[in-house]
Amino acid sequence: MKYSVIGTRPIRHDGADKVTGRAIYGADFQMAGLLRGFILRSPHSHARIKSIDTSKAAALPGVHAVITAKDFPEVDGKKMVDLGEGLMPLAYARGNVLASDKVLYRGHAVAAVAAVNEHIAEDAARLIEVEYEVLPCVLTAPEAMLPGAPLLHEDLTTKELGKDSGTVSNIADHIQFSIGDISAGFAQADVVVEREFNTATVHQGYIEPHNATVLWNNDGRISIWCSTQGSFVVRDATAGILDIPVSQIKVTPMEIGGGFGGKIPVYLEPVAALLSKKSGRPVKILMPRQAVFEATGPTPGSYMKVKIGAKQDGTITAAQAYLAFEAGAYPGAMVVPGAMTAFAAYNLTNVLIDGYDVVVNKPSTAAYRAPGAPNSAFATESVIDELALKLNLDPIDFRLKNAAKEGTRRADGPRYPRIGCIEVLEAMKNSDHYKSPLVGPNRGRGVAIGFWFNIGFPSSCTLNVTADGSVNLIEGSTDIGGSRTSIAMQAAEVLGLRAEDIHPSIVDTDSIGFTAVTGGSRTTFATGWAAYEAAQDVVRQMKERAAKLWAVAPDTVTAEQGIYKSNGHTIGFKELAARISETGGPIVGRAAVDPRGAGGSFAGSIVDVEIDPETGKTTILRFTCVQDAGRAIHPAYVEGQMQGGSVQGIGWALNEEYFMNADGRMMNSSFLDYRMPTALDVPMIETIIVEVPNPGHPFGVRGVGEANIIPPQAAIANAITHAIGMRMTRLPMNPPAIMEAIWCQKSLSPLS
Amino acid sequence: MKYSVIGTRPIRHDGADKVTGRAIYGADFQMAGLLRGFILRSPHSHARIKSIDTSKAAALPGVHAVITAKDFPEVDGKKMVDLGEGLMPLAYARGNVLASDKVLYRGHAVAAVAAVNEHIAEDAARLIEVEYEVLPCVLTAPEAMLPGAPLLHEDLTTKELGKDSGTVSNIADHIQFSIGDISAGFAQADVVVEREFNTATVHQGYIEPHNATVLWNNDGRISIWCSTQGSFVVRDATAGILDIPVSQIKVTPMEIGGGFGGKIPVYLEPVAALLSKKSGRPVKILMPRQAVFEATGPTPGSYMKVKIGAKQDGTITAAQAYLAFEAGAYPGAMVVPGAMTAFAAYNLTNVLIDGYDVVVNKPSTAAYRAPGAPNSAFATESVIDELALKLNLDPIDFRLKNAAKEGTRRADGPRYPRIGCIEVLEAMKNSDHYKSPLVGPNRGRGVAIGFWFNIGFPSSCTLNVTADGSVNLIEGSTDIGGSRTSIAMQAAEVLGLRAEDIHPSIVDTDSIGFTAVTGGSRTTFATGWAAYEAAQDVVRQMKERAAKLWAVAPDTVTAEQGIYKSNGHTIGFKELAARISETGGPIVGRAAVDPRGAGGSFAGSIVDVEIDPETGKTTILRFTCVQDAGRAIHPAYVEGQMQGGSVQGIGWALNEEYFMNADGRMMNSSFLDYRMPTALDVPMIETIIVEVPNPGHPFGVRGVGEANIIPPQAAIANAITHAIGMRMTRLPMNPPAIMEAIWCQKSLSPLS
Repeated sequence: MKYSVIGTRPIRHDGADKVTGRAIYGADFQMAGLLRGFILRSPHSHARIKSIDTSKAAALPGVHAVITAKDFPEVDGKKMVDLGEGLMPLAYARGNVLASDKVLYRGHAVAAVAAVNEHIAEDAARLIEVEYEVLPCVLTAPEAMLPGAPLLHEDLTTKELGKDSGTVSNIADHIQFSIGDISAGFAQADVVVEREFNTATVHQGYIEPHNATVLWNNDGRISIWCSTQGSFVVRDATAGILDIPVSQIKVTPMEIGGGFGGKIPVYLEPVAALLSKKSGRPVKILMPRQAVFEATGPTPGSYMKVKIGAKQDGTITAAQAYLAFEAGAYPGAMVVPGAMTAFAAYNLTNVLIDGYDVVVNKPSTAAYRAPGAPNSAFATESVIDELALKLNLDPIDFRLKNAAKEGTRRADGPRYPRIGCIEVLEAMKNSDHYKSPLVGPNRGRGVAIGFWFNIGFPSSCTLNVTADGSVNLIEGSTDIGGSRTSIAMQAAEVLGLRAEDIHPSIVDTDSIGFTAVTGGSRTTFATGWAAYEAAQDVVRQMKERAAKLWAVAPDTVTAEQGIYKSNGHTIGFKELAARISETGGPIVGRAAVDPRGAGGSFAGSIVDVEIDPETGKTTILRFTCVQDAGRAIHPAYVEGQMQGGSVQGIGWALNEEYFMNADGRMMNSSFLDYRMPTALDVPMIETIIVEVPNPGHPFGVRGVGEANIIPPQAAIANAITHAIGMRMTRLPMNPPAIMEAIWCQKSLSPLS
Repeated sequence: MKYSVIGTRPIRHDGADKVTGRAIYGADFQMAGLLRGFILRSPHSHARIKSIDTSKAAALPGVHAVITAKDFPEVDGKKMVDLGEGLMPLAYARGNVLASDKVLYRGHAVAAVAAVNEHIAEDAARLIEVEYEVLPCVLTAPEAMLPGAPLLHEDLTTKELGKDSGTVSNIADHIQFSIGDISAGFAQADVVVEREFNTATVHQGYIEPHNATVLWNNDGRISIWCSTQGSFVVRDATAGILDIPVSQIKVTPMEIGGGFGGKIPVYLEPVAALLSKKSGRPVKILMPRQAVFEATGPTPGSYMKVKIGAKQDGTITAAQAYLAFEAGAYPGAMVVPGAMTAFAAYNLTNVLIDGYDVVVNKPSTAAYRAPGAPNSAFATESVIDELALKLNLDPIDFRLKNAAKEGTRRADGPRYPRIGCIEVLEAMKNSDHYKSPLVGPNRGRGVAIGFWFNIGFPSSCTLNVTADGSVNLIEGSTDIGGSRTSIAMQAAEVLGLRAEDIHPSIVDTDSIGFTAVTGGSRTTFATGWAAYEAAQDVVRQMKERAAKLWAVAPDTVTAEQGIYKSNGHTIGFKELAARISETGGPIVGRAAVDPRGAGGSFAGSIVDVEIDPETGKTTILRFTCVQDAGRAIHPAYVEGQMQGGSVQGIGWALNEEYFMNADGRMMNSSFLDYRMPTALDVPMIETIIVEVPNPGHPFGVRGVGEANIIPPQAAIANAITHAIGMRMTRLPMNPPAIMEAIWCQKSLSPLS
């Protein structure tokens, strides 16, 4: 299939607005009578709230409203609500927005004030008197799982393999996936490697802090302006937390300054809503950077044990993983995809994976680009690397020998349709990077691969044909990584127009059919599909108009590349569009889809590092990212996603962590101290797009936003290991960690 | 047919926003970096522009751009463009926005400035040096038609009965409609009345002045925020004037503070666009009140001669009208509907109507509620009244004897489908008002009727079903009189929901299919029809979902009043809506219509007046308005339209006029001096809604926004005539005019 638009690199539709500063982000939103809100947050990581006295705050001139969790409308806390990432009890959903009886992490919201400006709001918040009974805190999964560990939730009982065990503990959930007989598998192995791994809590680190402006109008209708990955998520979550019908809320998504999964949950919207209700005025809350780190969802820290056995010929006979993920303050879900993807790149016969979701006194975790998968891949791909070494096999060949393919059954159940794991590995192997030798001391090369699902879920799209033959595209998918353009291009392809002829707009929740979150690498896939269908709807109507014009039967009209023909007549899309008013009025195409057939995506990293043996500093010499895009709609965007994910993986691998003291206080809650890679820290990330079309999408699209963050950590760990001769098992691998490994290596070495 | 929603009076959807001041009007719009524009206007009513020097203005600190007509992109001025009210040469369209070689009325825009604030912009505009050669002006149609009258356009040749006559004059157009043989008709008459009439130029008098904010973005896309009756009109007219494709422009309609036809033309948008292009910044222009009067379109002043003959039994045998309407500075179109409606309420066999569109040195006229019809009805209904007196017939009986009905052929050609002229007259006759005697000195009662077309034209509507079973309605019709609610109610009726379950939004031109202007009493008719069709589309999809849920064939599912049934299964709309995500995803209904079958509407006024013989002041004692609404979707809104039109008619009849000096300067260009009726000036307007369903609409809707302004002027003239015994033939009938009539009466009376 030859495409005209797909696969080209048109200028992005939002380019001019973004580079000239015209784009309106959440913090830019203004309206008459706007109050500013400020949230008082807990100084303790674990404490009982004995009392809250808001009287002094309320009395401060300029203050219009003060609220606490008591201001939530009364509803049974056990009611289950969906905040965009699965069902959870309302008590937890509300608890993370405003603490009621206990605070569970430092930065936990306790009360909020709306005042005429932000300074008065903050001053007033400081006048709120909260009496705490400080409790001992627990900060890591292994500690929290110990008998006698401080309990975060006195009513939380462990769900053991799907059933409520009745046991109160910090373990929210124990899941298990298995194939075959793990013991028999290990018995067949010639070589077995088993190691423990730890990863630190890291944050998505989006540049734009959370923000929300809410007007609770006198007629009960609530308007929300915020930056979010899902306007319908904000609508539905806020409705759930406030116990009001979803139709009472209209969410207008503003431009978003980065999300990566972290802008799915609601933090500020219900608080601003309650403040607006109480004050009768619109209320805007901007989250300070410190609160973004301390109180929004990072990705879980984790403790993992992985054991893999293989025969001398390189066939893996058994693979086992034990994953204990920190959920943060409330039960989470990240261990589930972590477990599902742990061995998902391999075609295995004997697998056992145990996953534990453990609450700790840290902020409640949120999605972060392929959530859970980088953790488990760090462990499994490190062990794979070590096995390859022990078997004296090329690490890519070893992986190729065991690679997942069409028909492979994953440990969590499903069999793969057509996937691109082997193609990604082959592209890695054939890359200039991998074929170039790496020479010099203190240098090492590492590779790793990773798998990530795509999801489907509903999306809607409307196309309005204008008289000059361009088309306005209306969608509900907030654009965090170029989906405006990748969706518009799919419509353009069907219509035989240029990408520039499509004008995409992301509209409020009233103005478009339900559209699920921009997440799960679904947007170009699912909303693109909606655009494809809506465009087909336009073509169908255009054919009818051409038929009317020519007085022929509609089914005699053909449309190809925007040229409509029948019976010797020919007319182009634009010429036909100019005549729609005389042939029956406006043409509006629409589609609402809930597609199955989302394809998974594989990614691989190749990295060369050099270690400074004096300081432990790691320099990334070269980095290549390979990914199966199914069909790269806009290759430059795909490359951008691959590069972005790789750089985030590099930061996660080398520097980023929530550095916490024993009391659960994050000591580096600013971008000065929480060190993320900048353009100066990394080389140009080389990209190789593999295209194994997804049979479940009209253009073969696979989501490309996430898989690329999975392999870098393991690839870098493998590279450092090869450079220094010591297996790195803990993230981040920052200079102190590397120096420690080097010293340890020297003390172990017979030559030292 | 029994309706659940139609005919009820739910609270309007925009009620809370409007009464609490939350509604955002054009002037409220703000954005970062906004400049303010100011337009320099001509102090002369007719002058040649010899030169414009903008250098001093451009040099003033704080000024970002200065423009004149030279900044329009070069295009052949003879190119025809449609500014929303028919085709006109581009040179005229542009000329009214920024004068090039001549100014044609006082207030004519000459140049514009954008600066950091409005004060600097105005100061800079005053620094622009314009050299004028002042020319003699001509202010009324009869003067302008005289041979040797000053010519406004040296290249304007009269279109004589559809053909270019080649004669240069101020007469832009001479049209003629006729039936039968007018001479033969008058020959059959027993009584003939012939009179001359004059009406003054009057303004719609909307409270909100014109406004526009425009951003010409770096990528060539233009965003416009303004209050308008037609966002697509603003888009297309601005594109036409600037000679750019319509798809480059997005118009976001703000709330509107009154339009009545006067917010259809563009005045500020192209100017703000050019200033934005030149400055690279968004530019907002708010029109001062004086400029609203002096430079936006009022309704034509007119000179008319009407002659009607009737037999002794009351049968009208011939009716003739000569109508000379002031177009203002550029050729207009109001005389056309004025002529079409002149005798449209009557079933006549011999008719001759001549209409003249005449340019004068006044602002270019615009639509004003049934444009043209109040003028001609003032003349014809006065003559009808006089004939009834002479024939000693009750004025309603006389009208009933000659009333138009289904099959009546109008002088301009078409035959009526089912109309409600007779029903309106009968309702007038049976009204409590008409049956109540009027007693006392200096009092008089008058009646009159009027006809107005409705138009169809394209409209689009999208319905998004939410999970809680309410529905978001997206439309492109700006709401000037309650159409948000009347459209939502039609969707609710089809869906079996309450009006409150529909959440209507009026969105920008990118986000909805083409939707024509809110004018011509079309919106509840045509966009309501689109909502009806979109709702049918939803019902069809809901049936499919129910079928899926029950595993039955879709065609077995019935839907009635929002209850879906098949084969013993039953489910309500809301319950079914909650399950759409599991049965195939979002449901979006859409329709784009271009309906034929718009029905005409008749209205009648009954008015009792009392004249103070000492001062000439007229007190409206009682006023009843009767109108055929076809089907009153929201009767309270229909009544509001009837009352609003009646009060505007009262103002037009008694007080309003452009009071101009000999140089063409309006001497009363403020609301203090241009006296419109307030709530203190009028009694409660009584309303009687007649419902003769329009067979051309699914619910029988006829437009109700305009016809009600047609009969008041004549009814009041007739009432005053009966009170003082002198025929009033000139509007406004203000105290001086009445005193003059009274003095004249005394001088004529044998008793004086």
